[in-house]
Amino acid sequence: MITLSLIGIGTGNPGHLTAEAARELNAADLILLPRKGEEKSDLADIRHLILSQILTAPVPVAEYDVPQRADQTDYLGAVNDWHDAIAAVWLDAITARLPQGGTVALMVWGDPSLYDSTLRIAARLPDVAVRVIPGITSLQVLTAAHAIPLNTLAAPVTITTGRQLRDHGWPEGTTTLAVMLDKGGAFTTIDPIDTHIWWGAYVGMPQQALVHGPLAKVSDDILATRARLRAEHGWIMDIYLMRRGGDV
Amino acid sequence: MITLSLIGIGTGNPGHLTAEAARELNAADLILLPRKGEEKSDLADIRHLILSQILTAPVPVAEYDVPQRADQTDYLGAVNDWHDAIAAVWLDAITARLPQGGTVALMVWGDPSLYDSTLRIAARLPDVAVRVIPGITSLQVLTAAHAIPLNTLAAPVTITTGRQLRDHGWPEGTTTLAVMLDKGGAFTTIDPIDTHIWWGAYVGMPQQALVHGPLAKVSDDILATRARLRAEHGWIMDIYLMRRGGDV
Repeated sequence: MITLSLIGIGTGNPGHLTAEAARELNAADLILLPRKGEEKSDLADIRHLILSQILTAPVPVAEYDVPQRADQTDYLGAVNDWHDAIAAVWLDAITARLPQGGTVALMVWGDPSLYDSTLRIAARLPDVAVRVIPGITSLQVLTAAHAIPLNTLAAPVTITTGRQLRDHGWPEGTTTLAVMLDKGGAFTTIDPIDTHIWWGAYVGMPQQALVHGPLAKVSDDILATRARLRAEHGWIMDIYLMRRGGDV
Repeated sequence: MITLSLIGIGTGNPGHLTAEAARELNAADLILLPRKGEEKSDLADIRHLILSQILTAPVPVAEYDVPQRADQTDYLGAVNDWHDAIAAVWLDAITARLPQGGTVALMVWGDPSLYDSTLRIAARLPDVAVRVIPGITSLQVLTAAHAIPLNTLAAPVTITTGRQLRDHGWPEGTTTLAVMLDKGGAFTTIDPIDTHIWWGAYVGMPQQALVHGPLAKVSDDILATRARLRAEHGWIMDIYLMRRGGDV
């Protein structure tokens, strides 16, 4: 019997790791690690850094190559095929290393619940029990860095993607909107009137950058900062919160 | 100069504490602790338990009495008055104990960003720098306990309150809805057709209880379980996620 433990590790600051996550990693029979690719190597490094800091005794590590996602026009279809391919790679690595079963740990950026594919990939594995250890999300690190609440008093919040914002605009009836997975500048597609934005890149990491202000005023600054940082580091991950209605 | 550090501690499992939160508590000159009231004493106990586990040297603790919230019909007005009263109590405790300034730590249930009042109360204090340390939220512990993602693939999520759901119904265009701060059974006010629910009480704590299934089928079970547990423990805190549209 295999137990696959999906462990949220936060957003690149080893201080985000919870005591439960550290315990779970130490208790694993095998740790699955994506092999460092050319891009986003800072992100691969952080997993090694965390393990070097928290493992109290050696735990076997299996590194795997992450399959490439096809560049199809059918976005959801491409994602589903990609998840199938990753599940197959995991299963090979696990059955090769743990033929008698055991507990496999997988470190997940942020939290496994939020815009992350590991739960969907894990669901493709036969006869595997899945356990989830929550971790700090980039959305929490963003609001913490700006020292703002996510919601206004007793009011709802919508979390969405850059793609959704581009395709469907500002959601009806929403005053607070958090946007993740934006390939860049989806906020330029909405009417900036009466809209405040709190933006962050590499949140929680040493290269963290923050901008906030009225969207109409800081929109160009964010685009320029994002382009400059992306060129400088070779990759970027950013997130932002917007509010309408004056309650900032 | 006073720095007030609002530290998310997760939902009652000491294992939710991050390394950063433990460091911040150890570095404080003063820890502000709400005095144990008659109700929800399990929640007060957890703060003492965490401190007993993670402080490597004694840190001065100031306990304060939490003012009562007036039972006004004007909900937002009552909340604002209550926040003013708590801010005054904090200020008294801090100036009495740290006349020369220093760092004050305050342990916040869950994460200071999500349906929590500490950031708004802290904003009422003059000449205080506020720092936020994120913590695991009950919403993350709920999805982890059920081993489900918060969002469906690339789709948005709305987080709201029981009051909002009762007053305004299921938000237009939403497929995933997380509900917090429900005094009980707001899910009975919506049409249960095609709606799945994942419910949890005391998530992360030893007395954790979970129910999930089609809302039409498990609604009565949740109401009965909630009433029974509330009677048994003297208090209850619960949360749930609902999805419409068949993608569970």
